[in-house]
Amino acid sequence: MHIKKQRLLTPGPTPLLPSALHAMMGSDIHHRTDDFRNLYKRVLADLKEILGTSSDVLVLVSSGSGAMEAAAQNFFSPGDEVLVCSAGKFGERWVEITKAFGLHPTVLTAPYGEAVHPESVEQALRQNKNLRGVFVQASETSTGAQHDVKAMGKAIQRTEAIFVVDAITGIGTMPLDVDGWGLDIVVGGSQKAFMIPPGLAFLSISPKAWAMADSAKSPRYYFDLKREKKNAVNGESAWTPNTALLLAFAEALKFIRSIGMPKLVENAQLLARATREAVTELGLQLFSNSPGSSVTAVRPPSGMDSGVIVKEFRTRFNAIITNGQGSMKGQIFRLAHLGYFDFHDLFAIIAELELILAAQGYPVQFGTGVAAAQNVYAEAALPKEAVALT
Amino acid sequence: MHIKKQRLLTPGPTPLLPSALHAMMGSDIHHRTDDFRNLYKRVLADLKEILGTSSDVLVLVSSGSGAMEAAAQNFFSPGDEVLVCSAGKFGERWVEITKAFGLHPTVLTAPYGEAVHPESVEQALRQNKNLRGVFVQASETSTGAQHDVKAMGKAIQRTEAIFVVDAITGIGTMPLDVDGWGLDIVVGGSQKAFMIPPGLAFLSISPKAWAMADSAKSPRYYFDLKREKKNAVNGESAWTPNTALLLAFAEALKFIRSIGMPKLVENAQLLARATREAVTELGLQLFSNSPGSSVTAVRPPSGMDSGVIVKEFRTRFNAIITNGQGSMKGQIFRLAHLGYFDFHDLFAIIAELELILAAQGYPVQFGTGVAAAQNVYAEAALPKEAVALT
Repeated sequence: MHIKKQRLLTPGPTPLLPSALHAMMGSDIHHRTDDFRNLYKRVLADLKEILGTSSDVLVLVSSGSGAMEAAAQNFFSPGDEVLVCSAGKFGERWVEITKAFGLHPTVLTAPYGEAVHPESVEQALRQNKNLRGVFVQASETSTGAQHDVKAMGKAIQRTEAIFVVDAITGIGTMPLDVDGWGLDIVVGGSQKAFMIPPGLAFLSISPKAWAMADSAKSPRYYFDLKREKKNAVNGESAWTPNTALLLAFAEALKFIRSIGMPKLVENAQLLARATREAVTELGLQLFSNSPGSSVTAVRPPSGMDSGVIVKEFRTRFNAIITNGQGSMKGQIFRLAHLGYFDFHDLFAIIAELELILAAQGYPVQFGTGVAAAQNVYAEAALPKEAVALT
Repeated sequence: MHIKKQRLLTPGPTPLLPSALHAMMGSDIHHRTDDFRNLYKRVLADLKEILGTSSDVLVLVSSGSGAMEAAAQNFFSPGDEVLVCSAGKFGERWVEITKAFGLHPTVLTAPYGEAVHPESVEQALRQNKNLRGVFVQASETSTGAQHDVKAMGKAIQRTEAIFVVDAITGIGTMPLDVDGWGLDIVVGGSQKAFMIPPGLAFLSISPKAWAMADSAKSPRYYFDLKREKKNAVNGESAWTPNTALLLAFAEALKFIRSIGMPKLVENAQLLARATREAVTELGLQLFSNSPGSSVTAVRPPSGMDSGVIVKEFRTRFNAIITNGQGSMKGQIFRLAHLGYFDFHDLFAIIAELELILAAQGYPVQFGTGVAAAQNVYAEAALPKEAVALT
């Protein structure tokens, strides 16, 4: 018999920042008071600073999918032609959402695990001058692949179209120059690199996007961004806000500001690299040929269902990792790096993966995957640059 | 740069049980109401069940040292001759406490890292029929050594003396048959295997000990155990109780009851064994020749100050482990196993220890210590017997 602490190691929800979790205890404040207005203004200002944009940033009480819907509602009209880059489950969600609001998406599809090439986007824009928007995932969480939104943005900037980027798992795991790269709408969610529970989403909205909002005729009410903007100026939300999560968000933003967004990205990138080295050392294959740093999708050994690995992580170690989604179920397992993850987590996860593989009859020399991760730490980590959390 | 979560890996305070931590939020109750009385009665009953004793069990608002003092005050009189087994810093504390209250201790000393032999106790009892009590540590936290309290208890049972056992880190890490082995006074603390913060101590008191209390003349007031017992019958404490910690204690006791005390002990023993295998595999030496399972004291490589290892754990990984205490400072570092620890913790700790040793120039093949711990897991752990915590 052994104790097994529950550990949440998924690409959202992610492990919680303790100071953010504790802040939720202060949520007995009223949302139409200055207590709240000061909090809300601070969250919006800090979020804007962290995203490094001069665009408006608005927060919604919804999951990330709600903010994706808001992007489709507020800047387009039924019948508008748009381009969707689809390389996994969340690309497919863009297709579903745009269709649900009567837009006409042209879909550029990449096989699961791969990414849509920026050249394909450029070509599509050349071929169809009526395209009003381009939708993409910065990081496709379902496969671990990453899109080159910098190159795409540069191409889109030269057209009338706006660039709508689902960066829900991209923020905090890859560099994103919102203004410089022409990322007109950037969508994020609370339960990702922001280290707090699910329930909040947000968007940045460029002047180019706002200009389109004036003529946009898609029906909207709850996600009316102009209404939110009008209220936000006064430190208020259009509807009842999620006070507890905003208190947590304020703490998380404070933490990210204290270390700087580039350092948060670097942390995820380092852990992702160490994970790739570790699983490769164990003889496993990466699923994506353009892997990002939010989550690493790994193929199980030949003949093994990845669900077995996911189940064994839970049964043996009470650690929650994720299977493939949809058609990839059973084909991959995913190890997350975004937000509040550290090497301590990773060393243990790899040791546990080794034990699970061995128990399934896969030949493993204990400690060899861990050693590969340790080597990445040893080469990269300088103690004086590390961030101590209390 | 990399994120480093703070991790408390010391032999007290120990990592907190989440459900116990959350329960502290309910501490806005008053202690002279039935809300409190029901809580207090439940804590005392559950604690008694977990200790497996028919003796009275009382809780004090103090650290463990306070309960040690209560043992010296309530059952002895100035001038009483007592025997103290001293094998480390906490044995020395028994000497200080007994002297502070005018008792005359004869001290059986074992070198740091070793244990006092039960035969020495038996011999001392034969040589001095006036001995009124024998004081010992079940587990000497400062060295990681463990005393054979079963053999000692059997010898003391045949005399007039009472057996006073500091089991602060012994409870939950070794079998303790309180009634069967004649452990008249057993002292425990909240921040050890009970997985809650410091601030509560407790004692079990046998009928043989209570009989001595009637004639005991040592001065006492705050730690008057008769007064506590009288109040406890009605579900009250003599003085203002620590409500928050009692709420946490109730949750921790509920958890320990759910798995059973023997399983908690088995968890610590398994982790201690895996730790010994890991550090031995890395070429390090254990400090104690009779190591217990509360904490493992390890000698650093020859020529290396153990303080460097402690400091590097904090600097590189924000993990708090402990140095040697007093004269052992610099000579050993200590890795804890008592309470809310699991293999996930251990795999990471060993990987970190390997990195720290290598950074100091000690030859380490990464992953080999982890592999030794993995082997202990692989041989011992049966998933169906593991305890999932939410």
